[in-house]
Parts: sequence; C-alpha cells; structure tokens
Amino acid sequence: MRHLLSAEDLSYDEAILVLDTAKELAQLSGRSVKKFPTLRGRTVVNLFYEDSTRTRTSFELAAKRLSADVINFSAKGSSVTKGEGLKDSALTLQAMGADGVVIRHSASGAAHRLANWVDGAVVNAGDGTHEHPTQALLDAFTMRERMGDLAGLRVTIVGDVLHSRVARSNVVLLHTLGAEVTLVAPPTLVPVSVHTWPCAVSYRLDDVLPKTDVVMMLRVQAERMKDAFFPTAREYSRRYGLDRERFAKLPSDAIVMHPGPMIRGMEISAEVADSPRSTITEQVTNGLSVRMAVLYLLLGGSESALRNQEAQG
Amino acid sequence: MRHLLSAEDLSYDEAILVLDTAKELAQLSGRSVKKFPTLRGRTVVNLFYEDSTRTRTSFELAAKRLSADVINFSAKGSSVTKGEGLKDSALTLQAMGADGVVIRHSASGAAHRLANWVDGAVVNAGDGTHEHPTQALLDAFTMRERMGDLAGLRVTIVGDVLHSRVARSNVVLLHTLGAEVTLVAPPTLVPVSVHTWPCAVSYRLDDVLPKTDVVMMLRVQAERMKDAFFPTAREYSRRYGLDRERFAKLPSDAIVMHPGPMIRGMEISAEVADSPRSTITEQVTNGLSVRMAVLYLLLGGSESALRNQEAQG
Amino acid sequence: MRHLLSAEDLSYDEAILVLDTAKELAQLSGRSVKKFPTLRGRTVVNLFYEDSTRTRTSFELAAKRLSADVINFSAKGSSVTKGEGLKDSALTLQAMGADGVVIRHSASGAAHRLANWVDGAVVNAGDGTHEHPTQALLDAFTMRERMGDLAGLRVTIVGDVLHSRVARSNVVLLHTLGAEVTLVAPPTLVPVSVHTWPCAVSYRLDDVLPKTDVVMMLRVQAERMKDAFFPTAREYSRRYGLDRERFAKLPSDAIVMHPGPMIRGMEISAEVADSPRSTITEQVTNGLSVRMAVLYLLLGGSESALRNQEAQG
Repeated sequence: MRHLLSAEDLSYDEAILVLDTAKELAQLSGRSVKKFPTLRGRTVVNLFYEDSTRTRTSFELAAKRLSADVINFSAKGSSVTKGEGLKDSALTLQAMGADGVVIRHSASGAAHRLANWVDGAVVNAGDGTHEHPTQALLDAFTMRERMGDLAGLRVTIVGDVLHSRVARSNVVLLHTLGAEVTLVAPPTLVPVSVHTWPCAVSYRLDDVLPKTDVVMMLRVQAERMKDAFFPTAREYSRRYGLDRERFAKLPSDAIVMHPGPMIRGMEISAEVADSPRSTITEQVTNGLSVRMAVLYLLLGGSESALRNQEAQG
Repeated sequence: MRHLLSAEDLSYDEAILVLDTAKELAQLSGRSVKKFPTLRGRTVVNLFYEDSTRTRTSFELAAKRLSADVINFSAKGSSVTKGEGLKDSALTLQAMGADGVVIRHSASGAAHRLANWVDGAVVNAGDGTHEHPTQALLDAFTMRERMGDLAGLRVTIVGDVLHSRVARSNVVLLHTLGAEVTLVAPPTLVPVSVHTWPCAVSYRLDDVLPKTDVVMMLRVQAERMKDAFFPTAREYSRRYGLDRERFAKLPSDAIVMHPGPMIRGMEISAEVADSPRSTITEQVTNGLSVRMAVLYLLLGGSESALRNQEAQG
Repeated sequence: MRHLLSAEDLSYDEAILVLDTAKELAQLSGRSVKKFPTLRGRTVVNLFYEDSTRTRTSFELAAKRLSADVINFSAKGSSVTKGEGLKDSALTLQAMGADGVVIRHSASGAAHRLANWVDGAVVNAGDGTHEHPTQALLDAFTMRERMGDLAGLRVTIVGDVLHSRVARSNVVLLHTLGAEVTLVAPPTLVPVSVHTWPCAVSYRLDDVLPKTDVVMMLRVQAERMKDAFFPTAREYSRRYGLDRERFAKLPSDAIVMHPGPMIRGMEISAEVADSPRSTITEQVTNGLSVRMAVLYLLLGGSESALRNQEAQG
C-alpha cells in the first residue's frame, strides 16, 4: 500500500492491518503515550482545495502526534489565482520533499491524479462525490469496537447517497469486511450505477430498521435543498430523519452513526444524537486513531517498530 | 482552577500564583531557556470565532514554548457554514482529545458554555463584551513589574468601557489585588450596572489624572464611531485622548498602558505612546509570559516541576 | 549579515557562504538528515501581507527542518482592519521575541522599514516590485549545480522586467557572482533606470538565445494583461514565449529556468517546461535548501556547529 486513494484499494488484510494498528495506537494513547517519534523529520502536507476544518484538524493532529512536521497548504490563495493547477501544486510539493500529501478536492479523481505526480504517499481526504476512505475506516473501526467482528453485520446507510463520498467508501469497505449493507435514500438521490454496488437498496426506512444492527445517517447538504430533485427539509426530515419513534424500531443493541457535522432536528433528533447508542463523538476520536494508523503505515516505512510487531504478531 | 473563564474566578492566591509563575517563566526565558518540555504531547486548540492575530499568536507561541502541539481551529470556515454550532465544535474538540481550548467568540458567555461541554481546560481569550482575563493578568503583571505591589495602586481606565471586556476584567482583577480603580468614560459609554462594580466612575479625566499611578487607555472601536451614542473621533480625541498636555498632568512616575492595537493620534498621541513611561510593548511581552503561566498551571498537572517548586517556595 | 533585505547587501563572500551552506544542508538532507536541532527554541514569524502559498510554505518548511517554532502571522486579518500598521505589527513581533521575521509585502521597501523596528533578523520574501533575494539565491544555487562556477555564465532574463522583483534581485546577485546578464523585455516593460543596472538589454529574443547559457523566463502577471502598455497574451506568447522552436536556438547544454508558478503555453510551452533541461522543480527543491541556509546563518549564531565547520573548511 503506497497511497490510500480509495476504499477499493484495500484488501481484507490491509483493512484489518489499518484497523488493528489504529487499535494499538488508541490503546497506547489511552495509556498516556501522546506523542510517538515515528515520523520525526517527515513532512505531511494538508492540501485542501475545500474547507474542512474537522477533517484537516484530524489529519493535522494525527501527523503531529506522530512527530511529523505539518504544513497546511491551502490551495485557495494566490497559487490558484495565479493560475496554478493541481499538477503544478503537486510538482511543487514533490520538489519540497513532502513525504505525505493529504488532499481534499471538489473534483472526483483528484487524489488519483495527484498520486501520478508525487513520490510521497497520497491520502484521499475526500474527492468530490467519489471517495473518503479514512471516513470508511473510522466507521469500520467504530463498528468493530461496538459490535465486534463485522462479518454478517447489517448496516443501513440513510440519506443523500448520490452526492455522498462517505456512502460510497463505506459500501465498498464494509463489503470487503463482510458486512451486509442496505442503502435507503429518496429515489432521486440514488446513483444510477447503484446496481453495480455490493449492497441492497430500499426506499422504506421503517421496514429496514428492525433488521439493522448499525444505522448510519448521512449528512444532509442543505445547499442542495434548493435542487428540484431534492425533497424539502420538512419532507426529508419526515421521511428519513431519525427521530425517537424510528429509533425505537431498531433492535435494542443497534447503534446510530453520523459522520458529522450533523443538523440536529433534521437528519437526526437531538435526543437520538445524544443517546448512549449514538457513536457520533466516538467516531471523531476514532478518526484520529485511524488517521494516525494510515500515516504511520504509509510513511513509517518497514523499519517501524510497531509494524514489525504487527508482522510478528 | 480547572478553567480560566473570568477574572472573577481568580482568588487573590490564584492570581498571585499565575503572576509569580509568569515571572519565573519570564526570568528563565531571559536566561535563554526558550523551550520548556512541560506540555509535550498535550494539544492546545485555538478556537477563534473572531479574527485576532495578536491574541491568537500570543497563545500559539505560549503553547509552543511549552512544547504543546497547537491546532488553529478557525471557526469561520466550513464547519460554521455547514451549520455546526459551538456545542458540536466543542464535542468534536473533546473527542479529538484537546487538553486545552483557547476560545475567542463574539458572544458573551461563550467560554462558559464551552466549559460545560469539554473535559479539557478552557481559556477565555475574549467573549463579546464580557471578559478577557489573560489581558487583565498581563496588565497586572506589567503594573507589578513597574510599580511593585498593587495594594493601594491608583489605576484609571479611560474610554469605551461599555463595550470593553478589557475594562471589565481589569476592574475585577485589580480589585482582587487591592488596587483602586477609577473609570473615566463618555456618559453614554458607561454600563448601567457600573454601580455594582468595585470601582469609582468619573467623567472628568483632567481631574483624575493627577491622582493616578497607572492610566490605561482602552482601544477605540472605530467601527462604533458611527453610533449615535458615541462621540465623533475629533470629539473623543479632544476629551479623552492622552496627548502631551494631559500626560503632563500625571505624577512624574505614573505609567501609561494600552492593550493594543492603538490608533496613534486618536486615543493616545505618538509621543506619549513612545515614551519610556508607556508600557505598550512590555504588555505584549508580558502577555506571552502570562499565557505560558496560565497554560502551564491549567494543563501541566500537579506533576510539573515548577509547580512543585512553587508549592515549596 | 544581520538581515537579508536585498541582493545588494550580499558581498561575493557572503553570497558564496549562503550557497555553500545550502549545498551542505542539501547533502545532509539527501543522506536522510531531515531535521536539524539548530534553531530549537527560536521563533520564526511569517509576516505575509500578500498571499503566497509557495513562498510561505518554503520558508515554513525550512524553519521547521531547523526545529524552529513557526508562527504564520497573516496580516490580512483583524490587525489590519483595526488600523494597525506595519510599525505596530513590528513592535508586537519584537515584543513577542521573534528571532526572525520573514516578510512579504506589496510595498517596495517594507522589509527595510521593518528592519529598523525589530531586533530579530528580517528576511525579505518579496517587497513590491523591488527585491526577492532568496529567489535570486536559489536561482544562483540552481545554476551552480547545473553549470558550475557562475563567472562568465551568460544569463538571459525574459519578460515583464518592470514589475519583477525576481529580475532585479537576479541581476544584482548574478553580477556579484560574475555572470553576464541580458534582459529581454517588451520595450514598455523595461524600467527607465535600467541603464544603471549591471546588465545588457535587448528586445530581440531570437538573437540573444544562441549566446545564452541560462534562459530565465519571468512569470507573466496575467492581471496586468489588461494594462495598455502590456502586450496581449497572444502577442506576448508569440514574441517572448519559449516554445519548441525558440528552445532549439539555445546551445545544446543551455538550461531553462522559471520562478513559478508558470502558465504553460503562454510564457513557456509544456514541452519545454517538462524537458530535462528545465530546472523548474529543482528550483523549488533548492529554494528549501537556500532558505534553510539563510535562516541558519542569520539565526543560528556563531555557536552553530556547521558554521564552525564552514569557518574551518
């Protein structure tokens, strides 16, 4: 594994290696080991063409905990206005000796293109409506922590699947890990290619909930609410929002996930969001561990102690 | 002391502990100890909902000198536009394991609300027109350095008290430390609750100056100059500006303070600002020491060497 | 050398010291020494009044590789809107104990003014149309790597010389180092003072190219293309663009330089830009080494090991 561009790149063994490494790092952090020397002297660049304070912060913190130097290379400034494209930014970062580049871009495929131009490891932190693989990994990590092995786990993903890189990456990774995924979305918000995805599709949330172990609510992109093919906010909330009544239809040990930031009262009621069966803040915590693991495995090199441990373990 | 939300939280002993610790750190820095390992592995987040390059930089530098990892979590980007409120940002930072959160917010009370939602230490770096306790601490530190013990010291605070968190925090802390404070302001810019504050009020600057040891000029918020209840710039400068003539009315050992950034020629003349009796740049230097002390005491834990020294001292 | 404000400040020996130090640092970095402890505990402030992600990132990375603490003090935020001028920012940084300040400003002379107000070392990272000395140093470094000694080297600089701080700094430094410089520019884009510069001027690129060892294409500032005295983009490209045909007129070992970011197809064709005789990405890499050397020499102090080695070497 040289880059992490897509959940599709991850074999079962690779995904498990990331999750196990994240677990190990989380346990060490829990025992007050807050700083690891592994990436000392390495440079990680956050190349963000879209704002995303949460994701950028998570990667920045992950890299700093591994003692890397972190550069926030916001691509919204002068480089872009001076007409510099992704390729030239890539060549610049390459020439500066970036060991890892974390990229967020509005265009699907941007991370793959970047990987052609740089020697350093590329981590896709969200490219258009395409993929967001570390989100899928942190979600899988969270399910493992709460529910154990993912084989046979029934996961329902609810919302605007069409525009969601989170949904796509989750479907792929969960399938690799043996879970059974059902998508529930307004008919206009299901991708036409969905029949090629390894999952079921339903339009009736209330029917699916009783057979669900994990329900993952997608973020509603309010800016799309103006689109003709999107339900109104009220309609969305009524048909797809997870309120107390719907929550009661879940099996009693089912959990509720959301990638954040959520709109309380719209896609999820405040009561459900704050329930002990909601994992929303755990997901943030786990995101840090998973991103540390990804940077560690991609940049740490074969000499790293933990990796050797892993290999022996 | 788990948070620093308000000057009111500080007992006399706690305030003195902060000031003494700051003094010790300043002396060590003066002896070329530029970097302390105390907060290695700890994470300090600067959560700034308002721009303030000076204050943010001061906290960032203070945290870095203590070897903390610093994350600038600007809350003006996507999180806010995606509808995320203060509570969700708080839960995110909490979930990421922030050991300390430094918050600047336009709403009075924001720092207190934040403190309900996170385990880490919260430092109020200015909330609306309410409080800015580290400013009061650095001002007190500066007075101590210049004038010795604060008991009985006559401090006059001049300007737009109504909108000034600096004035409010200073009045409270100076009272705790035994100084006698007089506020001088245009009548329309005195808070109605001022009779509950532990200080005197005057409208005649020229009468007060001869009985003043420390005159603290507040920043004029030029954007308010359009308000009906604010004097015009010329009027303000004539009645409340500290020019050469007024400066001459002060006792010969009195000092002049300003929290910066100042408007030369308006609230203070260039000549006075650059006088050796002006402490404006010292205040910036002292701000760094005081913020190091605050982060040190809040985040360093009881195991810290310096604190033990303090306890024994 | 206390500051680096202008290529004119650099004597032959000082310039060679920077270039030799950069070479040494580059070689150590090539042998996997990625992090040097030299500036541990020192603070470098990037004071950028203009956006420049590339230059800011290069300095940030250089300072971090030397273990300095780096503060990005963007001067576009509140300080400026609160009416704070360069002098007050300078006094603030001075008071915070900045050991080095890297300044980018739209006004020619800003770096010199700053140097009057701070004790720390000032590095000019571009001031208006005046100077950009580290760019000239990295260009000289690149020529040395590719072509050996610069004495007698024929360097042709092509483009909008009038607005180019890169051109001015290069002409000065290259002259100091013994190279022979020719400027080629549209007649309206040659400064009137050019007769005082130590270089030749020509308007006929095709005549000069066969007698050129190094051709340096300047960045076309597209925003100026609207100016009456600027050629149109098509006209510029036809007369001054370096396409395949023009490239063929160069001696077979001549190299092509560009400070970036470039506009492919306008000032330089993609084919030429990607040729092995183009040094565009090397210049970025070398920029990092040169900026490390500059910070090292200015801030490292006489106690630094490498410098002693230099002195003995």
